[in-house]
Amino acid sequence: MENILRGDKITLGTCYYPEHWDKSLWEDDLKRMLSVGIEVIRIAEFAWSKVEYREGEFNFDFFDEFLELAAKVGMKVIFCTPTATPPAWLTDKYPEVLNARQDGVLFRHGARRHYNYNSKKYLELTAIIVEKIAEHYAKHESIIGWQLDNEFNCEHWEFYSESDSLAFRVFLKNKYETLEKLNEAWGTMFWNQIYTSWDEIYVPRTTSFGNNNPHHLLDYKRFISDSVCRYAKLQSDILKKYIKPGDFITTNSIFGNLDCCRMTEESLDFITYDSYPNFGYCLNDFERMKDELNDRKWSINLTEARAISRIFGIMEQQSGSTGNHIGMEGPAPRPGQITLWTMQSIAHGADYISYFRWRTCTMGSEIYWHGILDYSGRDNRRLKEVGDVYKKLQCMKEVAGARFKAEVGIVKDYDNGWDSELDVWHGRIEWSSRMAWFKALEKSHTPFDFCYLDHISQEELNGYKVLVYPHAVILTEEGVNKLKNYVEQGGILLLGCRAGYKDSTGKCVMAKLPGLVSDLCGTDIPEYSYVAPDDAVPYAIWNGKKLPAAIFNDLLAPVNGGKVEAEYEDAYYAGTPALISKETGKGKTYYFGGAFTEETALSFLEGLGVASPYKDVLTLPACCEISVREKDGIKYIFVLNYSKENIEVTLHNELTNLYTGAIEKGEVTLEGYGTKVYRL
Amino acid sequence: MENILRGDKITLGTCYYPEHWDKSLWEDDLKRMLSVGIEVIRIAEFAWSKVEYREGEFNFDFFDEFLELAAKVGMKVIFCTPTATPPAWLTDKYPEVLNARQDGVLFRHGARRHYNYNSKKYLELTAIIVEKIAEHYAKHESIIGWQLDNEFNCEHWEFYSESDSLAFRVFLKNKYETLEKLNEAWGTMFWNQIYTSWDEIYVPRTTSFGNNNPHHLLDYKRFISDSVCRYAKLQSDILKKYIKPGDFITTNSIFGNLDCCRMTEESLDFITYDSYPNFGYCLNDFERMKDELNDRKWSINLTEARAISRIFGIMEQQSGSTGNHIGMEGPAPRPGQITLWTMQSIAHGADYISYFRWRTCTMGSEIYWHGILDYSGRDNRRLKEVGDVYKKLQCMKEVAGARFKAEVGIVKDYDNGWDSELDVWHGRIEWSSRMAWFKALEKSHTPFDFCYLDHISQEELNGYKVLVYPHAVILTEEGVNKLKNYVEQGGILLLGCRAGYKDSTGKCVMAKLPGLVSDLCGTDIPEYSYVAPDDAVPYAIWNGKKLPAAIFNDLLAPVNGGKVEAEYEDAYYAGTPALISKETGKGKTYYFGGAFTEETALSFLEGLGVASPYKDVLTLPACCEISVREKDGIKYIFVLNYSKENIEVTLHNELTNLYTGAIEKGEVTLEGYGTKVYRL
Amino acid sequence: MENILRGDKITLGTCYYPEHWDKSLWEDDLKRMLSVGIEVIRIAEFAWSKVEYREGEFNFDFFDEFLELAAKVGMKVIFCTPTATPPAWLTDKYPEVLNARQDGVLFRHGARRHYNYNSKKYLELTAIIVEKIAEHYAKHESIIGWQLDNEFNCEHWEFYSESDSLAFRVFLKNKYETLEKLNEAWGTMFWNQIYTSWDEIYVPRTTSFGNNNPHHLLDYKRFISDSVCRYAKLQSDILKKYIKPGDFITTNSIFGNLDCCRMTEESLDFITYDSYPNFGYCLNDFERMKDELNDRKWSINLTEARAISRIFGIMEQQSGSTGNHIGMEGPAPRPGQITLWTMQSIAHGADYISYFRWRTCTMGSEIYWHGILDYSGRDNRRLKEVGDVYKKLQCMKEVAGARFKAEVGIVKDYDNGWDSELDVWHGRIEWSSRMAWFKALEKSHTPFDFCYLDHISQEELNGYKVLVYPHAVILTEEGVNKLKNYVEQGGILLLGCRAGYKDSTGKCVMAKLPGLVSDLCGTDIPEYSYVAPDDAVPYAIWNGKKLPAAIFNDLLAPVNGGKVEAEYEDAYYAGTPALISKETGKGKTYYFGGAFTEETALSFLEGLGVASPYKDVLTLPACCEISVREKDGIKYIFVLNYSKENIEVTLHNELTNLYTGAIEKGEVTLEGYGTKVYRL
Repeated sequence: MENILRGDKITLGTCYYPEHWDKSLWEDDLKRMLSVGIEVIRIAEFAWSKVEYREGEFNFDFFDEFLELAAKVGMKVIFCTPTATPPAWLTDKYPEVLNARQDGVLFRHGARRHYNYNSKKYLELTAIIVEKIAEHYAKHESIIGWQLDNEFNCEHWEFYSESDSLAFRVFLKNKYETLEKLNEAWGTMFWNQIYTSWDEIYVPRTTSFGNNNPHHLLDYKRFISDSVCRYAKLQSDILKKYIKPGDFITTNSIFGNLDCCRMTEESLDFITYDSYPNFGYCLNDFERMKDELNDRKWSINLTEARAISRIFGIMEQQSGSTGNHIGMEGPAPRPGQITLWTMQSIAHGADYISYFRWRTCTMGSEIYWHGILDYSGRDNRRLKEVGDVYKKLQCMKEVAGARFKAEVGIVKDYDNGWDSELDVWHGRIEWSSRMAWFKALEKSHTPFDFCYLDHISQEELNGYKVLVYPHAVILTEEGVNKLKNYVEQGGILLLGCRAGYKDSTGKCVMAKLPGLVSDLCGTDIPEYSYVAPDDAVPYAIWNGKKLPAAIFNDLLAPVNGGKVEAEYEDAYYAGTPALISKETGKGKTYYFGGAFTEETALSFLEGLGVASPYKDVLTLPACCEISVREKDGIKYIFVLNYSKENIEVTLHNELTNLYTGAIEKGEVTLEGYGTKVYRL
Repeated sequence: MENILRGDKITLGTCYYPEHWDKSLWEDDLKRMLSVGIEVIRIAEFAWSKVEYREGEFNFDFFDEFLELAAKVGMKVIFCTPTATPPAWLTDKYPEVLNARQDGVLFRHGARRHYNYNSKKYLELTAIIVEKIAEHYAKHESIIGWQLDNEFNCEHWEFYSESDSLAFRVFLKNKYETLEKLNEAWGTMFWNQIYTSWDEIYVPRTTSFGNNNPHHLLDYKRFISDSVCRYAKLQSDILKKYIKPGDFITTNSIFGNLDCCRMTEESLDFITYDSYPNFGYCLNDFERMKDELNDRKWSINLTEARAISRIFGIMEQQSGSTGNHIGMEGPAPRPGQITLWTMQSIAHGADYISYFRWRTCTMGSEIYWHGILDYSGRDNRRLKEVGDVYKKLQCMKEVAGARFKAEVGIVKDYDNGWDSELDVWHGRIEWSSRMAWFKALEKSHTPFDFCYLDHISQEELNGYKVLVYPHAVILTEEGVNKLKNYVEQGGILLLGCRAGYKDSTGKCVMAKLPGLVSDLCGTDIPEYSYVAPDDAVPYAIWNGKKLPAAIFNDLLAPVNGGKVEAEYEDAYYAGTPALISKETGKGKTYYFGGAFTEETALSFLEGLGVASPYKDVLTLPACCEISVREKDGIKYIFVLNYSKENIEVTLHNELTNLYTGAIEKGEVTLEGYGTKVYRL
Repeated sequence: MENILRGDKITLGTCYYPEHWDKSLWEDDLKRMLSVGIEVIRIAEFAWSKVEYREGEFNFDFFDEFLELAAKVGMKVIFCTPTATPPAWLTDKYPEVLNARQDGVLFRHGARRHYNYNSKKYLELTAIIVEKIAEHYAKHESIIGWQLDNEFNCEHWEFYSESDSLAFRVFLKNKYETLEKLNEAWGTMFWNQIYTSWDEIYVPRTTSFGNNNPHHLLDYKRFISDSVCRYAKLQSDILKKYIKPGDFITTNSIFGNLDCCRMTEESLDFITYDSYPNFGYCLNDFERMKDELNDRKWSINLTEARAISRIFGIMEQQSGSTGNHIGMEGPAPRPGQITLWTMQSIAHGADYISYFRWRTCTMGSEIYWHGILDYSGRDNRRLKEVGDVYKKLQCMKEVAGARFKAEVGIVKDYDNGWDSELDVWHGRIEWSSRMAWFKALEKSHTPFDFCYLDHISQEELNGYKVLVYPHAVILTEEGVNKLKNYVEQGGILLLGCRAGYKDSTGKCVMAKLPGLVSDLCGTDIPEYSYVAPDDAVPYAIWNGKKLPAAIFNDLLAPVNGGKVEAEYEDAYYAGTPALISKETGKGKTYYFGGAFTEETALSFLEGLGVASPYKDVLTLPACCEISVREKDGIKYIFVLNYSKENIEVTLHNELTNLYTGAIEKGEVTLEGYGTKVYRL
């Protein structure tokens, strides 16, 4: 694979901004990086004006000089396209390139990511700057790869400019061909919303009470994603004309309203992610956000990144406190946390770790988004810890390229994700169940993957012992066939409430529920309701395990071979089936009538025999995360202690500690924020 | 009276949307309705495009076909004007018809009720569509009545388009004739707000801190109400040219900034109300809203409807869970609740109950606004319960036309209502006392009416034993004369704090307080204050009963024959009179210096001898509501159990249970959500 | 000094609005004022239209008539320029004079302070009206002084009109001369914000996430302040051409984004302040705001006023409940509170007390902003209390002109104040420490001053025994030199965390921290962090006193003669220095690594020997405030009881009670809300 993910070692990098510093600092900076093991830097993602200070006046001297230095000292470079921050001259002259609030107020120059993806002028200017940069720099020996733009859809994942409405019409014409089909898809007969001309259609605008048509909103989210993908491909296609063989193209994601799987397939070699687990400790939001996981919750995002690229990179790995002058106030990483978060990334499949950033910026919005070094650039505790990380990585090169190992897959798809964002009924169950599953899996030390149903291959899917699709609200025949094949081949599929009540337009189906999976599940749903807010959470008992059925209850009935596994014990529908199973081929499907609590999820993990797969290898407290990567039949077990206290781990086998090479067994101590990587 | 309120039975209806369903479903749907007792349907309120798909192209085929079917199967129809949802072609071509946010941003196509009542273009297009529809359909045999538009002022009860400013000037010129009078009325000398030209006047615009002139705001609310009334009358006047004799005109209200009494007098035969008591159990707002009443609070709204039309209809009666994709998440009605809420409506004076809606919509914003049937249309528990309701109604036809019976009237008027919305000092006492009185009356089983002082006849008013006018802030001579006549004729009038300190402009009077009622009350108010937030609620003791004087205290002194009934026991003004009475003619007035708590209200009900008038007939727990309708000297007592638990009621008399015809006496059990109707 | 502050008595005044009342009331009103001791009235601040009803049509009759009456009865007058409320004709014809929301929506006629300071048209119209008024009225015998406008920057302290952007460019050109210097100052290299033309620069506009460049924001705040100062000077310069010798010019401040020191130096004779301590008891915000200080917190603002003018006036002193129809709902002052708040003002250095207002307005937004009299104008309790105040003042004329006495100065400067408003990291420590110091000083009865570092003379500064500069984030060489001179001359300077990490652009310095004060403090800061939200507040022990180091911790190291005074006892940096001292010249500097809690501040006050300087004179409970004014070697001790309970004070010396002339010693009782003024 590409340079930084080629599988023979885990590489360290950092983000560097030569334009922020006096040139006299450059050489010393690069040499100090190399001295602590940093071999790669990312540059230039906000540096449009360093190449095109005025429209059409291109000057390459600045980065020529810097790249020359990089080559001299032996620093490898990831170069970026600079489109995240158009220059002032550009947006002042062409305000049509700006993004807008839904009510039409433009987002002006002065922050970042204020452009839209659909302005013809911006696409034209983008093509020019990318072409100029690629043409000039791509052959440079120091460059090993490229980043497109920076954090597509960060800050804003909705776009309301006039250009967006025009492009939306094109998108819709391509999708529906006729207004009749669009009217049908959006159910515009409701509230007399029928469109009689394409020109009557806009991106969702300010409406009475913001009660916009939900099917319109769902297509709008797809359109936004399509816009980003097209924009990324525009850049990627230009770059590909110029880059050296072996050089890679990536971008740092993951953000809203963006099908990263598609973008990666179309335009990237792999995805990179920007990981800031210390957001879990931000002062301004801690009371609301705090729970027993905090920084450990970033493992969800790393799992997400892995669902896009099995092996991925961290383009920005937290190395200092975060924040800007308007919020996100974070403390400095405590001793050990930089190592912990680095190992968290690697444990989940990252083979490239680039610390954000080398020096803390002394100006602008991110003066508190600390890098490894503080403002003065003096040596400090964090730099020392980066050096220590490097030493650990030297001892664990064999982990590079190893694949994350999981028996449990949580099924996702973008349509349901987006629908759950625009529809509070869907969102309420989706977000609650997602956290419940994550907590149950994490705390029971059960590794898992996310599986994007529209993107994962049947073969990969069939490799999981158990698939959980918490709320498969929108179902397509294609998706159901994939699930059915999985079950027929021996898989165990668990579905939660509300499956199949919508089609891909987001409209409700008139078939008996659960619609397209009724047969696969052997289940009928004669009635359903939210759990009333003055009722306790109903529950069922299944093989002696309690299954709280939170938030929403489908009242089930078995059909077509379905077998009642458990009944509601509570509410006016006590005695009604709450869990029905059905065998199909070599496998089995379970339909559960509620949303999941952590307890429900744990009951299922245990009942389906997939909880805690490494309990025979080692025993460890809930505050530790376990992750396993595997290569050539060898397993690498990451043990990560997120608590500040020392904890005891019991090793039931002899395991090799990769950091030290020592064989360990029995009781071992892991210090606060400590990490271990064992070979099994 | 009109068809559905003709007094010989209570009629069931439902709301049907033929345009939402394949025609193949129509006939079966209508027949199923009839089979469970549903005899009337409302149609077409959002169907403008089904008649005028493009501007000026009228086509009546769709509803012709449907009405033909209705006639065939024997279904009666309430037809609607479709103006609540103008077509996309209309608002796109004529954006001046749109309503706007206060800051000028237009509410665009994509939701509903996005038009304004004052655009000349919209009035013109309204007249055309109403004329066309009336002309074509009004003679159809199946039609028995008409609904104007749908839910005037729902979603928005403020309008800020340019058309509104133009019309506001006309309204003000009619009212004030000269700018001098307007400047005087609005007190524009304050903060130099003097207008020197009519063109300087607008609907309230965005101002510094939103600190708009309150007298301007009050007239603006009157203007909004006037706008709706004019708009309703425009439609009603057209309809009256075409409708068959005996067919009625109504609309479904009640919403903000709208004098429904005036609208009904001018344009309707009676009012209908849309009753959704399950909003009391919405998940998204339950923690804030919950109290011991929940769905029972909807009896306030039913009392409001009755104040407009003594006998009224329910155009939309909740039959499933409510909600849309952006909120209002409701659980399904629990078994018995559909019956309970239906009987709640009837108990309060409704003789027509139309369930919203037949089938749950599968598309658009209201996919969660469930009807009787779910998406599939299969038979279900709720349909069965509707059938059961129908059977009960068959046994209680004699109740139809009976009038709600109350000895206590709560006096209201639109001016004070609106002033309390724009003035937080007024609102704080008004809203708190309103709920306090409602809870005390409900929980003590004391039926009451609302009496709109400007609309109720002197004769009707004088029929009440006790009138409570909690906070008669704005007083007019006309109103005071009405109250005085009431007292002189033997009535007991109770006023709370802050009476008479404003005139009808909303300006404060310079007369000694309580201004126009000082003489009637024998009361002077040398001093007043909010109860300081670090003080306990002061109270007085009156005939051994405690009268907490919440929120605001007038410090009273007797004048002109006033008699001190009780003094404050607390605060720095302990010993100052808190309650003064004065006899006038055959009656008596009480002036109380505070806002009312539930305890205060109950003390007054008991002290004035009007609490619990049926306590000799039956004894029942606080969780039950009692309502009484009377016809030809016979009383019908509705007993409604809002709790989920069974409760015991003790009948001291022999009473006939209308549902069964049985005579009951002594202890009887009412199941959770159970209802009884007794003949006395 | 000027008339009302001439040092021979404390003068009472009130605010009167002849334009609000029928002329028939005027004479009686003025005579009643005089009868209770009110000798001065302020008039005309919102009366533009009384002089220029239509553009260019001037008529002076109204105030001529009123001033004639004032002269007749012997009432002195403060006349105002009327620019706070431009007429409707003005803003309707010239909308460019309006202020706007950041997103461009204009603030329209209908409230007040809706103009901007930079519209050329408004400056032109201002000059005309001020000139006309001054020319006509200035020589009138009754007039003793002038108020400019009314409450500059109240309501809004941000301005976003087009005129403001144009003026901002001029301001920036004057400041930076070249774009290169501006780009450098604003760090526009960050996020590619480089400006290549002055026309690309605007006041801060709507941006993505509101994440505007902080250095741009800081200059914007300076520009706003500059705008107000220029606007005040425009008016003041005109007035000076016309006013009688000895007549003063003032305005009522203090509001945001305004360097009142500069404005006073340039345009005023002294500052006046509008004091409404009862805001501490507003119902609508009490739960959030309440603490043990409430109305006593207004002493911060009085201290602020004193920092601008050693002797100042209260232009609006609360005399009734406050509030408008949209909020700020206040109870009436309780008996004694008018006296208490009056004495609070005098205790802090006010020699003129003008009650707001004579009669409560019956119209407009401020119908609840009560004056001495209620709507009817009848005699009342509050009027009586004003008369009692007057009697007290008759007994304490000798206090007039006495100067507030404090050994402790809290150092402030506008740059740090403004930076703390735009930067949450700065604000979090600044606001917390400010309240901590205030509470510790107040509750330990330690009088203090605020010292504006850029405005106070070196001599005045050196008069303080201890200076506390809680968070000297932005430091300049000039400021540091002033502090150094203070220390060299024997002062004790205490700095809290984060000193010197920014320069005057708001950019971070690359020098080792604490930057410019490193040498003066003998301190180096190798590392720093927010206190993590899951950690307890770290603390140090210093001479047996506990020093909690809240919010943010600098981890210190001694350099250049610094001496470790205390170390952190907690967190991962336990054992690291938390407090370092260094002697310089005759004085000493302390650098403390945290933000201050009340406990920390008290420990320092005690440890530095400046706590409770009057503890040998009298002992009193924490709920009492003590203030001392001194003249000719005589001290006047104000003792103010903010609680509603009687409290005991022990006098260790014989003290003369100025109210009574009696000598008191030993235990004396101060009733609830009671006040005493002793001569020492």
